[in-house]
Amino acid sequence: MTVMESKDFSYFFSDETNARKPSPLKTCIHLFHDPNIVFLGGGLPMSKYFPWDNLQIESPLPPFPKGIGASPSGSKEDTCHVTVKKNETTKAGETNDIPLSRSLQYGFSQGQPEFLSFVREHTDKIHKMQYADWDVLATAGNTSAWESTLRVFCNRGDTILAERFSFSASLYAAEAQGVNVFPVPLDEHGLIPEKLEEILDNWNPEAAKPKFLYTIPTGQNPTGSSLSDDRKTQIYRIAQKHDFLIIEDEPYYFLQMDAYEQDKSRRVQKNFSTTEEFVASMAKSFISIDTEGRVVRLDSFSKVLGPGTRLGWIVGSKQILDAYKMLHEMTIQNPSGFSQSIVAGTLNRWGQEGFLDWLIGLRREYNEKRDAAIDALYEYLPRSSFININPPIAGMFFTVNIDASAHPEFATTYKSDPELVEQAIYEKVVSSGVLVVPGKWFKSEGETQPPQPASSKAVSDPNNIFFRGTYAAVPLDKLRDGVRRLGDALYEVFGVAK
Amino acid sequence: MTVMESKDFSYFFSDETNARKPSPLKTCIHLFHDPNIVFLGGGLPMSKYFPWDNLQIESPLPPFPKGIGASPSGSKEDTCHVTVKKNETTKAGETNDIPLSRSLQYGFSQGQPEFLSFVREHTDKIHKMQYADWDVLATAGNTSAWESTLRVFCNRGDTILAERFSFSASLYAAEAQGVNVFPVPLDEHGLIPEKLEEILDNWNPEAAKPKFLYTIPTGQNPTGSSLSDDRKTQIYRIAQKHDFLIIEDEPYYFLQMDAYEQDKSRRVQKNFSTTEEFVASMAKSFISIDTEGRVVRLDSFSKVLGPGTRLGWIVGSKQILDAYKMLHEMTIQNPSGFSQSIVAGTLNRWGQEGFLDWLIGLRREYNEKRDAAIDALYEYLPRSSFININPPIAGMFFTVNIDASAHPEFATTYKSDPELVEQAIYEKVVSSGVLVVPGKWFKSEGETQPPQPASSKAVSDPNNIFFRGTYAAVPLDKLRDGVRRLGDALYEVFGVAK
Repeated sequence: MTVMESKDFSYFFSDETNARKPSPLKTCIHLFHDPNIVFLGGGLPMSKYFPWDNLQIESPLPPFPKGIGASPSGSKEDTCHVTVKKNETTKAGETNDIPLSRSLQYGFSQGQPEFLSFVREHTDKIHKMQYADWDVLATAGNTSAWESTLRVFCNRGDTILAERFSFSASLYAAEAQGVNVFPVPLDEHGLIPEKLEEILDNWNPEAAKPKFLYTIPTGQNPTGSSLSDDRKTQIYRIAQKHDFLIIEDEPYYFLQMDAYEQDKSRRVQKNFSTTEEFVASMAKSFISIDTEGRVVRLDSFSKVLGPGTRLGWIVGSKQILDAYKMLHEMTIQNPSGFSQSIVAGTLNRWGQEGFLDWLIGLRREYNEKRDAAIDALYEYLPRSSFININPPIAGMFFTVNIDASAHPEFATTYKSDPELVEQAIYEKVVSSGVLVVPGKWFKSEGETQPPQPASSKAVSDPNNIFFRGTYAAVPLDKLRDGVRRLGDALYEVFGVAK
Repeated sequence: MTVMESKDFSYFFSDETNARKPSPLKTCIHLFHDPNIVFLGGGLPMSKYFPWDNLQIESPLPPFPKGIGASPSGSKEDTCHVTVKKNETTKAGETNDIPLSRSLQYGFSQGQPEFLSFVREHTDKIHKMQYADWDVLATAGNTSAWESTLRVFCNRGDTILAERFSFSASLYAAEAQGVNVFPVPLDEHGLIPEKLEEILDNWNPEAAKPKFLYTIPTGQNPTGSSLSDDRKTQIYRIAQKHDFLIIEDEPYYFLQMDAYEQDKSRRVQKNFSTTEEFVASMAKSFISIDTEGRVVRLDSFSKVLGPGTRLGWIVGSKQILDAYKMLHEMTIQNPSGFSQSIVAGTLNRWGQEGFLDWLIGLRREYNEKRDAAIDALYEYLPRSSFININPPIAGMFFTVNIDASAHPEFATTYKSDPELVEQAIYEKVVSSGVLVVPGKWFKSEGETQPPQPASSKAVSDPNNIFFRGTYAAVPLDKLRDGVRRLGDALYEVFGVAK
């Protein structure tokens, strides 16, 4: 079997990307490591003036038999001791560490080799990449990687596609740059391929076509929905037909779980006897379908290791990654050297299998939290036809969908405006001591231009409002308490008897 | 004495800044820490799932009696042991650490409080801020902070002012964004205030005025020049007269040194008996002159602790910093939590005095390296009138200025084009085993629009070319060796007998 090369998609690049010149200093920085050259070329401080040495940090040890939340004792049995020296050590048997003398220096704008090689192997293990010239690039997390995506591809006035409700910071970043976000209808299973196709088939021929679709396929923020493999294949086909890129923003990818089972007696958490079984259970990604470098995947450690690492990676064709790299050289330069040394030091000690063990453990924890949240919602919320709960199969979020017209004062106090009901419920809920956030915070506002086909305008009832909650941020007892407070508030607001 | 508030400079903001909406999720993230609220609001993973605890790192201990380059032994006498726990510890006498449970979490887009308070105190100690509502904001280093500056203030087509030769990555970032960089003449003492004023007095009335001046006042990159206090005061007055902001990019500020003294017997390194003396010896900064919030100062740890910390800070008025913060919330979010925990953990143990001791030690090292470089230049370079050396009093860079027309083949092989001579010398130098970089790499190209007054076009001889070298990146023996190779190459190129 011959493996194909990616296509040339450089015609999607922004004016900024096209105008960007590589820094000439970056073209000679490799001479810093050339033994035949005395490097008087760039302002690189000598590492002897970096004040740090002997970085040590502890983590639990794979396969994490007590669960990933268990604190290690510090003993060899359950504790992974990560030690990163300032200077390169080459003793046999040692793990692939990034010495501080290198990670704290300039250079390596693609990321440190020891970090990239781990992430590259991980990516191929999970996604089984289908074209030859793919690669990975270190990022400062997905917020930054998304903003870079906009800069790499979009000019002011360009249009992109996104789920009708999406992560507000992502939408706002686009809007501030003058990029029109065209909303695509979604249901409880995510983006609706038929609606997407209809939008593009009926695209205003006077208007430029969208450059890409921005999607959060797994545990979508805010709806909690996840795209099926089948929908992904359909969407990829539409992207080929109408020639746009797909940006998959996947911070929640590894928070996939069993389908929710309301009957606790029938609830059995999936167990994986091997990591291969776990990998096989995962949803197909857009990048795994991709045969031509049409997909850019934004991956992050924020939800699986910790947001403050400000470390993630992009998977895509080398051509596209080069454009990101040139942008990075003028923005973040590279992610923090401490972050790279610590994350690579930990992951290279855990190994690929150990990291998958961690992710399996994480799946277990979130499965339990999701179950607790949905159980509590069924227990504490009014069981009324105007309140609807869709148990998620991935991610951190659940939604409580409400028919605002069921509010006793809908037509009077709230003048039949569902957003006013939403705001009133939000205020009531917060004053009841629980924070869930209103759906309107996530609504893409870029609806008017270019004109949408009428049929896609209202896929759901216009009086439908929703609140996004998360089971991620608090322990199980507080979670139940929070949902109870939410339920009490809704009983009161809608005047339903308990 | 009443302390003034800053002026409102929001009319300089870019369209993007004006269009930027705060993320509504950021408005409620503080409720995460509210004990009366069950936080189901945002996708914050619980810190029990962060795999790290017991971060430890070693640094030398103030007052660094063996010099800042000496490796600590690990003993209590000469080693500062930084330990950062996952969870908050509140034992009396402990330093102000940022626990990993917080630094690795979302939130604190201005920076972690323990980091900011150190930097705030340091800033006031050094610059003695003159207006009331100033503050500091954590950044991912000056490359990122500069790019953010462009986004905060500039629209496509705007003009800014910069030194005629400046850091190429800074210039290229502006150019890629469609921002015209108007070059201002500089000499061996930096920007020439009279030329700056002349440019603005003669500004094309049809063209929009520049929004700001971008300057590297200390150890300017690439020329190595440093602005005197007097020139800074003049430039600030011109900025007030013509109403533009001043962006001072100051990575080399603490690499100030004694004036170069060629006669080694008369060379005495300045010693400071107190840190106050050291602070008093420093050049006045633009921010220290500023009475109205007209200056934005970009400060960095890259040159004083290590580039890979990707950590710095901006000093400016709260109004302006708010615009950066809103941009950061959609880009970097915040600098790496590991970087903040380690840097704050180290600096809060060293204390303000200890950090100044470090900076005094650094000054000593760079003074010695500068002396070695300039000594070697005088020793090894052809002593000809067409080669000119300006010993720097700050920073990492020296320049070798050459009259290209002195090249024996100037009019023949090189067709009287100094850039061709520059390129030929560059290639010769690299093939001789030393890297110095040609001045043209740093030349601002935005000269044509709007028209410059004729007098500012050629402040120096058009046949003058230069090469930038650094004494930062290599130890003293290699430095001498490199300069010797450079000298040999120049002897050969110019056919001068030794």
